[in-house]
Amino acid sequence: MSIHIPQRILVAPSGFKESLGADAVAAAIAAGIRRVIPGVQVDEYPVPDGGEGTAEVLATTTGGELVPAVVTGPVGRPVTAHWARLGGAARGTAVVEMAAAAGLRLVPRDQRDPGATTTAGVGELIAAALDDGATRVIVGCGDSGTSDGGAGALRALGVRILDADGSELPDGGAHLARAARIDLSGLHPRAREAEIVLACNTHNVLCGPRGVARVFGPQKGASPAQVEELSAALEHWAELLARTMPALPLAPGGAPAPELDLRTGPGTGASGGLGAGLAAVLGARLAPRFEVLLDPSVAPVCLDALIAEADLVITAEGAIDFQTPRGKVPAEIALRARTAGVPVLGIAGSLGAGAPDVHDIGIGAIASILTVPMELEQAVDQGEALLRDAAERSMRMILLGSALSARGAQQLAA
Amino acid sequence: MSIHIPQRILVAPSGFKESLGADAVAAAIAAGIRRVIPGVQVDEYPVPDGGEGTAEVLATTTGGELVPAVVTGPVGRPVTAHWARLGGAARGTAVVEMAAAAGLRLVPRDQRDPGATTTAGVGELIAAALDDGATRVIVGCGDSGTSDGGAGALRALGVRILDADGSELPDGGAHLARAARIDLSGLHPRAREAEIVLACNTHNVLCGPRGVARVFGPQKGASPAQVEELSAALEHWAELLARTMPALPLAPGGAPAPELDLRTGPGTGASGGLGAGLAAVLGARLAPRFEVLLDPSVAPVCLDALIAEADLVITAEGAIDFQTPRGKVPAEIALRARTAGVPVLGIAGSLGAGAPDVHDIGIGAIASILTVPMELEQAVDQGEALLRDAAERSMRMILLGSALSARGAQQLAA
Repeated sequence: MSIHIPQRILVAPSGFKESLGADAVAAAIAAGIRRVIPGVQVDEYPVPDGGEGTAEVLATTTGGELVPAVVTGPVGRPVTAHWARLGGAARGTAVVEMAAAAGLRLVPRDQRDPGATTTAGVGELIAAALDDGATRVIVGCGDSGTSDGGAGALRALGVRILDADGSELPDGGAHLARAARIDLSGLHPRAREAEIVLACNTHNVLCGPRGVARVFGPQKGASPAQVEELSAALEHWAELLARTMPALPLAPGGAPAPELDLRTGPGTGASGGLGAGLAAVLGARLAPRFEVLLDPSVAPVCLDALIAEADLVITAEGAIDFQTPRGKVPAEIALRARTAGVPVLGIAGSLGAGAPDVHDIGIGAIASILTVPMELEQAVDQGEALLRDAAERSMRMILLGSALSARGAQQLAA
Repeated sequence: MSIHIPQRILVAPSGFKESLGADAVAAAIAAGIRRVIPGVQVDEYPVPDGGEGTAEVLATTTGGELVPAVVTGPVGRPVTAHWARLGGAARGTAVVEMAAAAGLRLVPRDQRDPGATTTAGVGELIAAALDDGATRVIVGCGDSGTSDGGAGALRALGVRILDADGSELPDGGAHLARAARIDLSGLHPRAREAEIVLACNTHNVLCGPRGVARVFGPQKGASPAQVEELSAALEHWAELLARTMPALPLAPGGAPAPELDLRTGPGTGASGGLGAGLAAVLGARLAPRFEVLLDPSVAPVCLDALIAEADLVITAEGAIDFQTPRGKVPAEIALRARTAGVPVLGIAGSLGAGAPDVHDIGIGAIASILTVPMELEQAVDQGEALLRDAAERSMRMILLGSALSARGAQQLAA
């Protein structure tokens, strides 16, 4: 028996946050593979995860375009963001990446107070997409730097959030403790007509012990006291929304699930409670992110078909660690590949604590891109070259394993 | 066909300089392999390279012991060094590791002047071994911090090196420019009786454009002017030795090859010219290091037999880079494994420039131990754990390749 060389390899990576987009990651890995097996068919499928880079990936894969827009950033200063007008069969769908307008990266380190930051820019991007005629707006949730329960986004869409005296509340989740009434009279005319879908991690919930303030508050910069204050404010906000929601006329699409528990329902905590706010007021649907982002209606090429046709799937992520099995891109790819019985290899910018846990979810082997002691900044700068080299090394190791197998078979036959 | 899982793996690494001995490297890799294939037979063969750790490896593998000795260090201050009294079939052989007495690591950074440092301690270790009754002394050359043409070692063995006025020269290669006469009257009585073998990189020569002063002087701390000065001094030293050597009575072993060109003969430049000095005055034999160090007379287990019985060989080195193919441990292992047709995998603390060159010499795949951006110091501190994890990752990747092969075979059969 001769060595079995893979004929077709699927490269389906996430982007590397703050470094490389998913398409650049896929291209670098593909280049590394071809160094070792020049004739191989490599399918590149950059996988959006709802966070940074999602709008760009979907604009590219559908043949649409990115529309730049200057909007209110998370700390109130203008930021240049963008939304995607999808093309092809997905025409009419817009993708708003919340991270582009209110991502943690846009919050200066010395201003990281999740009780103060706002999703106003997200609402402005949604308004821009609606004004452009979008009949469906997908909001990618992920990498957010806010915990305002979506209040900022709603205000940007014309909703007034008032205190007991009838004064409008300032931006920031902490102020929601004083919210007494929601005035929809100025709501964007198309905000409840269009289908709004949030692509979210449905494990994130708004309130309770695993609510967003407690789970994400600290990494967004909140002190323990601020976490409790914010937690209470969001609890109050959820109650107000729940009281107000039944009074809202249903949108034509009829989306707001009356049974959605705004405190602990799946996805209510997405992007610091953006999920709860948009679901309650706009009737937005909160859906598992990969279900939305890999749906045939936005993804022209069927990922599962590519997996089924591959001899090997390579996925990648900036960091593979204990969080990876909890719904990150490599976990989603591994789940789908396992169903198809195709082996999966994972390449990472860094392999953190708990990285070997990914073997339990079907990622057969993992590799790091690092070659010499270096600082993070250097690794980010050299990301593409390091990825290419890591893909080459991995392929060589796999071929070595394949050769070993061939040798073993010969010995058995002899 | 099922997956072929390796039954027997040979782990034959070098030590990681300034971090882990070759035996610790081998043990860590073996532990990583067993995490993936619990029942596998792993043969551990720590490979000495003549440099740091050589005496310890050979003492361990032959069942001998390390004998500590306080000797003159390369900058004149005492250092605690050691030599090995080999055991078993190698009883009677001593191993002196020149790096233990005159290694670059023992030269403080602010005193790195190869024209001034001395091999006196190496001579003292040889004398200690002779006094102990050794009939053969193997001198491991490598990692030296000196370029004194072996003058210091010879002085420690009783040789007087005199200037034109009959005054003894001070230590240091630069002074050899003034050497006029070699007085052997005080030579250690057993120094020319015992068999002295230098295990060296035979590519290193004493003089000429590729002489030690020019090739290694800069990394030992010499300025361009010092390089030229030292180069001239060693040229003069070689001439003096050549004039003196024929007058020396041959040792009973009859070793000094009359045809050895002390300027450019193989190994004359070993350890900053220690090769030339000991060959000329003591009749030491200058031999390729692995030929000496892997010889059955000192290595109780035959490396080539282990290679032939292995399904896979894993070698390792602190840094795999463009220098690796030039006679480093992984190159030697690859050469021997290629002859036997066994696949070789290389694991490195770091993969430097030119690392992929090793594929040309038969190392099928390489892996780095690094997982996250870190400093060298951290990588050194965590060396064992990082190695174990890297071995685990490599084995998983190899098994993935093996599974791929099995899958391919099934598809062909279907």
